[in-house]
Amino acid sequence: MKNEDSMVRLESPPELSMPIGEAMFSQRAIRRLDKDRPIDDARIKILLDAASKAPNGGNAQPGRFLVVRDRDLIRRFGALYHEAWWAKRRDEYGWTDKKDIPVGSVYTMPALLADEMVNAPVVVLAFSIGNAAMAHSIFPAVQNLLLAGRALGIGSVLTTLHPQVMERVYALFDIPSEIEFYCCIPLGWPRGNFGPTRRLPTARTTYWNRWNESPPWAG
Amino acid sequence: MKNEDSMVRLESPPELSMPIGEAMFSQRAIRRLDKDRPIDDARIKILLDAASKAPNGGNAQPGRFLVVRDRDLIRRFGALYHEAWWAKRRDEYGWTDKKDIPVGSVYTMPALLADEMVNAPVVVLAFSIGNAAMAHSIFPAVQNLLLAGRALGIGSVLTTLHPQVMERVYALFDIPSEIEFYCCIPLGWPRGNFGPTRRLPTARTTYWNRWNESPPWAG
Repeated sequence: MKNEDSMVRLESPPELSMPIGEAMFSQRAIRRLDKDRPIDDARIKILLDAASKAPNGGNAQPGRFLVVRDRDLIRRFGALYHEAWWAKRRDEYGWTDKKDIPVGSVYTMPALLADEMVNAPVVVLAFSIGNAAMAHSIFPAVQNLLLAGRALGIGSVLTTLHPQVMERVYALFDIPSEIEFYCCIPLGWPRGNFGPTRRLPTARTTYWNRWNESPPWAG
Repeated sequence: MKNEDSMVRLESPPELSMPIGEAMFSQRAIRRLDKDRPIDDARIKILLDAASKAPNGGNAQPGRFLVVRDRDLIRRFGALYHEAWWAKRRDEYGWTDKKDIPVGSVYTMPALLADEMVNAPVVVLAFSIGNAAMAHSIFPAVQNLLLAGRALGIGSVLTTLHPQVMERVYALFDIPSEIEFYCCIPLGWPRGNFGPTRRLPTARTTYWNRWNESPPWAG
């Protein structure tokens, strides 16, 4: 446990009053953001404070979050995100253009995000310091950040990049090469609504005592 | 998006009424569990339903959760967990016995969990199907499960295993070899309290526009 003396005990901010079930069950990817309505720093701090409270291995706290507010940096990052998004689709499906995306594809909205990232009011990038695999110490914090955003009415989506652009992203933000990148989260006030998502019933994604054995609620 | 027709829109269960900030800011690792007080299946289902609502890449929903309730299986798993815990400490620090752990170490309580896993009322193991790296689609669900547990008063801790025991764990639960393991979560009613955790101030874990530049609240 590092920096023991400098650690703090944060109280829950009163703004995070939404019932946890409401936040979880209405969380959805918000990719259409109001580019003209800013998010104030106080709200950004609430999201980061919430992220800091998530569990992490041995309380070593390897998570680091880069908040990008500067319009010119977001514009340049947005161009790299667009390139990364299409590089990933090229690798996976051979797509190079929107006309390659099948009608009704789950990628229709993400393709719009690839266009709109340049206009996101805020972009948060999540990293870990140290050299071990730290996904179990980073993504719980990311989910706290997203849920706290939901509770404040701030839209977000958990998204990734592609190796093709990483060197340029690191250079753009002066990120040391030994730092590990995990994900990218645009933030903004939603154009559109939070609301229900569709999921497989947990009777099908939960096993009981042994693999492939159904839970009691499978009926 | 697979199995489109079979997907469901879940409503938030009324039991998840705790303010999200209270749940997040009082979540802590609970390793001392009441071995004699069972958790009913209805509460377990709430935790799994909450997990299912977390974001995941392209709504492909690769997460699978194995809930272990059977006492004999938990006893056998607990022995493997104990072996895994000490194998990890041996690899990292050369420790082989509790007397090797320095006084005041962050590992004092986890060492007790290694002893007590055999008595956990419930153990949940998190996996992904499919062959890609899916941490970004699994750990947000794990955090939902832990937070929902916190809201219900159920104690939990996110913990891992060690390569030395994985083959035996897979055999114990009939897990196909192509399935990827992510983490292990014992669940039970706490012996002890939820409460504040200590974290680095976000002024030190957040950068602003560029790496190492402080956020406005750094003061």
